[in-house]
Formats: sequence, C-alpha cells, structure tokens
Amino acid sequence: MVMNTDSLALIKNSIKTIPDYPKEGILFRDVTSLLEDPQAYKLTIGLLVEHYKEQGFTKVVGTEARGFLFGAPLALELGIGFVPVRKPGKLPRETISESYELEYGHDVLEIHVDAITKEDKVLVVDDLLATGGTIEATVKLIRNLGGQVNHAAFVISLPDLGGEKRLETMDLELLSLCEFEGE
Amino acid sequence: MVMNTDSLALIKNSIKTIPDYPKEGILFRDVTSLLEDPQAYKLTIGLLVEHYKEQGFTKVVGTEARGFLFGAPLALELGIGFVPVRKPGKLPRETISESYELEYGHDVLEIHVDAITKEDKVLVVDDLLATGGTIEATVKLIRNLGGQVNHAAFVISLPDLGGEKRLETMDLELLSLCEFEGE
Repeated sequence: MVMNTDSLALIKNSIKTIPDYPKEGILFRDVTSLLEDPQAYKLTIGLLVEHYKEQGFTKVVGTEARGFLFGAPLALELGIGFVPVRKPGKLPRETISESYELEYGHDVLEIHVDAITKEDKVLVVDDLLATGGTIEATVKLIRNLGGQVNHAAFVISLPDLGGEKRLETMDLELLSLCEFEGE
Repeated sequence: MVMNTDSLALIKNSIKTIPDYPKEGILFRDVTSLLEDPQAYKLTIGLLVEHYKEQGFTKVVGTEARGFLFGAPLALELGIGFVPVRKPGKLPRETISESYELEYGHDVLEIHVDAITKEDKVLVVDDLLATGGTIEATVKLIRNLGGQVNHAAFVISLPDLGGEKRLETMDLELLSLCEFEGE
C-alpha cells in the first residue's frame, strides 16, 4: 500500500469540518466521520501499518480517548502491546503523571509505571496534532519510565497551531496523514 | 478460531486484578493488562470477529473510552463503520443524549443523530458489563435514532453486579468472554 495522493485524499475527504465548534470562529475537524466510513478507516490504519512495520517498535502508546481509536488497531496490526495514557484517576495500577498547559489552565495525563520498560521502543499515536501539549506530556511520561520514543503519528495535523514547532526540540519524527491549513 | 477453553483462559489470565481500587473492598478487573499482551488482545478481537461476522451488522457502537479499545478494532475487522458514544460536549455534530443512574448521582451519554439510520443493524461493544447502566443508555440512544440493536458484546462481565438482570427486558443477546464471580 503506497501512501499515494488518492488514498490520502479519500481519508481527508472523510473528515467533516464543523464550523464554530466548540466556539465561534473555530473549524473543528471531526474524526468521527472517518470512523463511520469503513474504507477510510481501514485505509488510515493500513497506511500507518505500512509506514511503521518492521522497525522494531515494541509498544504503541495512545492518548485518551481519540488516540485509542487509531493507536489500538495499529498496535494489533503490528502485533505489539497497546498502552493507554489517560486522564487522572482512570488507571488502576501505580502511575506517574505529567501536566501540560491548555489555553486556560492545565491538564494532567497518567501512565502505568510498569507499562513501559527501558527495552521498549515506543510509537506514539494520536488523532490530531494541534498545539502539541498532549504529545509533549505523553513523550515525557514514556521517557521518564526509560522508554525510547522518537516517532509520533497523527491522522490530522493543524500546522498553524504550532505543534510541530513546539515539538522541534524533542527529537521526534512526526507523521501526519492529513494537514488542514488556515486554522 | 473456536471459542475454546484455552483461548478464553489466556484472555482471562491476561486481566490483572487490582484489590481495593477505586475503593476498599473492590476487586478491579484491569483490562489495560490485556491490551499490553498482544497475543491476548489479538485473540480477543479474533473471537469477537468469528462470533459476529456474516450476520449483517452495519455498525459497531462503542462507549467512551474503554469501549473504543474493543469496538473500533472489531468494526475494522468486520469492515463496517464505528460510531462512538461519548460523554457530554465531546461530539461536534448534532447529538441526542440519555442519562443513566450511577451509585451516587447520574451520568449522561451522547451520540451523533446522523450516525445511525433506520437501516442500521448495530452491535454494541464495551469492555465490561457491571450494573448495565452504560449499555442500557447506549441501546436507548441507538433505538431512539431508529437503529436495530439486539446484540451487545463484552470482554468481561461481573454477574453479581446485576447487569444481565437489568438488561433482561431489553431484548438483547449478551456475550461476554470472561466472567468474574464473587464481586
């Protein structure tokens, strides 16, 4: 499967744009419409599998909740474990946490301390790269547990929101299947 | 793939039990340890695919957030769309909502109104059947949109918490891969 223009256009076209959500002036890119389209969803996972197979990854980490929708099927196809990063109080075993800034205030993410070891080569997956805060926190969590992480994959990126720039110094190779400009 | 004792034991053994979480006296069945075990995770999805293939389902509906981890890969394997049911304020298009009782207070779930049509034959998937409140609300949402739903699948069920009894009058065929008694 080649990451050709037709495949990527099919995926991009399956993503609905909702104007003025969650507030006026925002164009919200709605990944749930991709999930409802079995051809687009299968193609999305297929392209990620082709891109990341046979590179020695041992775990996929996906962030609650939409990261689960792409990270978990990718882990299954790659034949490796899936590790969820979640909001506080959702993971039952011992966790470490990392806070990250939002537009107003901050949020916190957690990971199980025994889910990643020093031997793990980790691929991070999320649905969307916007400001990069979630991914920065997720990568810090993995590195704090000794895991190697140098790759992060997204279905959508919004380059105007600065995520790529924010992650520049983190030694990460980023992949996104669809870019939406002019946010 | 036969749903034999060995496969089911492998899946059940991959689920860690966390005592006294989230509060004293509760034995928490931790499905994240299943996700970290690629053999158990693949087997789980494989058994569900075998059980539900070629029955004419047109959509899988999974409930935020752990329902995504099983419902989304199952939809992909069945070649049908995945529809998320989420907490309030997470879905960008027009939604309907349904509230359900918790031990203290209540919670609300939402679904996109255009995600299910009268032609849809829907399979509901969640990680765990406990009191059945989440599934009852999810089935009501689907039926309120005109969708047909008579099947719900779970990785884990806790029969002592009464979910099966609560759902008795809802004309649902329930499947769970692992039961944990004596909760």
